[in-house]
Amino acid sequence: MSDQPTASAPVTPSGQPAFILVRPQMGENIGAAARAMWNFGLDRMRVVAPRDGWPNERAVALASGAGRLLDEAQLFDDLPGALADRTYVFATTARDRGLTKPIVTPERAMAQAREIIAQGGKVGVLFGPERAGLENADIAPADAIISVDVNPAFPSLNLAQCVLLCGYEWQRQASSVPPEVMALAKTDFASGLEVEKLGAHYEERLEEAGFFWPPEKAESMKLTLRNLWGRLSLTRADVQTLHGVMRQMVRWAEGRRKDL
Amino acid sequence: MSDQPTASAPVTPSGQPAFILVRPQMGENIGAAARAMWNFGLDRMRVVAPRDGWPNERAVALASGAGRLLDEAQLFDDLPGALADRTYVFATTARDRGLTKPIVTPERAMAQAREIIAQGGKVGVLFGPERAGLENADIAPADAIISVDVNPAFPSLNLAQCVLLCGYEWQRQASSVPPEVMALAKTDFASGLEVEKLGAHYEERLEEAGFFWPPEKAESMKLTLRNLWGRLSLTRADVQTLHGVMRQMVRWAEGRRKDL
Repeated sequence: MSDQPTASAPVTPSGQPAFILVRPQMGENIGAAARAMWNFGLDRMRVVAPRDGWPNERAVALASGAGRLLDEAQLFDDLPGALADRTYVFATTARDRGLTKPIVTPERAMAQAREIIAQGGKVGVLFGPERAGLENADIAPADAIISVDVNPAFPSLNLAQCVLLCGYEWQRQASSVPPEVMALAKTDFASGLEVEKLGAHYEERLEEAGFFWPPEKAESMKLTLRNLWGRLSLTRADVQTLHGVMRQMVRWAEGRRKDL
Repeated sequence: MSDQPTASAPVTPSGQPAFILVRPQMGENIGAAARAMWNFGLDRMRVVAPRDGWPNERAVALASGAGRLLDEAQLFDDLPGALADRTYVFATTARDRGLTKPIVTPERAMAQAREIIAQGGKVGVLFGPERAGLENADIAPADAIISVDVNPAFPSLNLAQCVLLCGYEWQRQASSVPPEVMALAKTDFASGLEVEKLGAHYEERLEEAGFFWPPEKAESMKLTLRNLWGRLSLTRADVQTLHGVMRQMVRWAEGRRKDL
C-alpha cells in the first residue's frame, strides 16, 4: 500500500478496491462481510439498496471490531451510482450466466486489481444478495466475472465467504507482484459513469430509431447492449469516438430532413 | 483428484489431507467447517473430543448438504489417536507461539501437502477450539505451523473461515486450468474477416453521414475506428449487434426522409 493515511482523508482512499454489496439482505451478513474485509486490511465498503435500510443495527452488532467499515461505508440507491467513479469492475458469481465476459479466479482478479490500481485506476468488486446472487443486469456493467473454483457438487459459498476469499487473495499478493504486466495497464480506462452514459446515449437514440423491436424483446436487447459496452474495457477515447459515431448518425438523419 | 470412488472404500481415502478439529465447541461451527471443506472437495474430517459429544445435532443441522462428512467423520478421544497414522502434520494458529517450527502460509502448506501425499504420505491439518485455539501441547506434535497473513490490527478468523482458506488453497493448487482465464475459451470470438467487415460497414455509413471531417483528418479518424474494433475482442454476437445498430440508424434516417 503506497498511500499514506492523512488527517483529512480516509485511510488508503484509492489504494484498494471497493467491495460493493449489492442489495444485501441480512444485516448479519453485512457485518460478517465487513469483518472478512478488515481481516485483510480492506476498508472501502459500498452498499447498494440494502433490503433493511441503513444504518443496520444487526450489521453493526455482527461487525464487532470492524464496525468502522460500516460507519464509513458509502450508501447508494442504485448500482450505476456505486460504479460511477470506478474504471474497472469485477462481478462475483457462482453460476455460469452465459454472458460473454472473461471469467477469472479470485487470484487473477486481485492481481489485476493491484495492477490497475497501481496505474491510477479505480476497481470495484460486486457481491450479490445472499439468496439469489447478482442479476444479469447487475453483471452487465462489469468488465470481468470472478468465479471461485468450488466443488461442482457443492457450490455453497455464502456472501461473507466470498468476500473473505477475495480479501485473502488481495492480501496474499501484497508481497509478490505478478511478473506479467498487462499490456493495457497504463490505459486510461473510462469510468463506470462514462460507460453508463454511453450506454444511455445509444439506448435513447436507438429507442427513437425503433431498434428495440418487438416490444417483448426490448428489455433483453437493451441488456445485451449494456452488457456489450460493459465488457469492452473501453478507454476514455473509445467512449468519445462511440459518442461521436452516434451523434453523427443523428445529425445526418436530421440534416437529410433539412436538405429536402 | 486422481482417486476413484469404489463401493467398499471411502472416497479418496488417502488422496487428500485429513482436517482435524481439536476439541471443537459449538456444533454450528463443526457444521460450518464441514461445509467449508466440501466446497473444495475435501471430505476427510476427524473430530477430537468435541465438547458436546458426538454425533452433534446442531452440527448436522448446519452442515446441510455436507452432512455426509459428519456421518463419515472419525471420532477420537485424544489428539495422539487422531495423529497415529499421519506422517506430516500442520497446526493452524493465529498467534505466534514462540515455538521453533517452520511457519508457512496456507498456500505453501497445501503445496507441501500435495507433494507429501503424492509421495504416499498422510497429512493432517489441525484446527483448534473456537475460543482459545490450539494449546502448545496440541501444536507440539506438528511438523509445521500454518499462519494466515491477516491484518495484525484485526486477526479475527473463525474456525470455519480458517478451514475455508486451507480448503481453498488445496483446491487452488489442484486446478490445472490457468488462473488467467477460465471460461473465455468457450467464447465464440469474431474472425478477423468479420471484424474487418464490421469496420468497413461503419466506415462506409459514416463516410456517407459526413463523419470524417475535415478531410485532412479523415485518414487518422478511420484508423482510430479500425483500431477500436480490432482491440475490443468482439464476439460474433457483438459484431451482429453492432451491425444491427448501424443498419437501424440508417433505416431510421431514411424513414425520416420519406416522412417529409
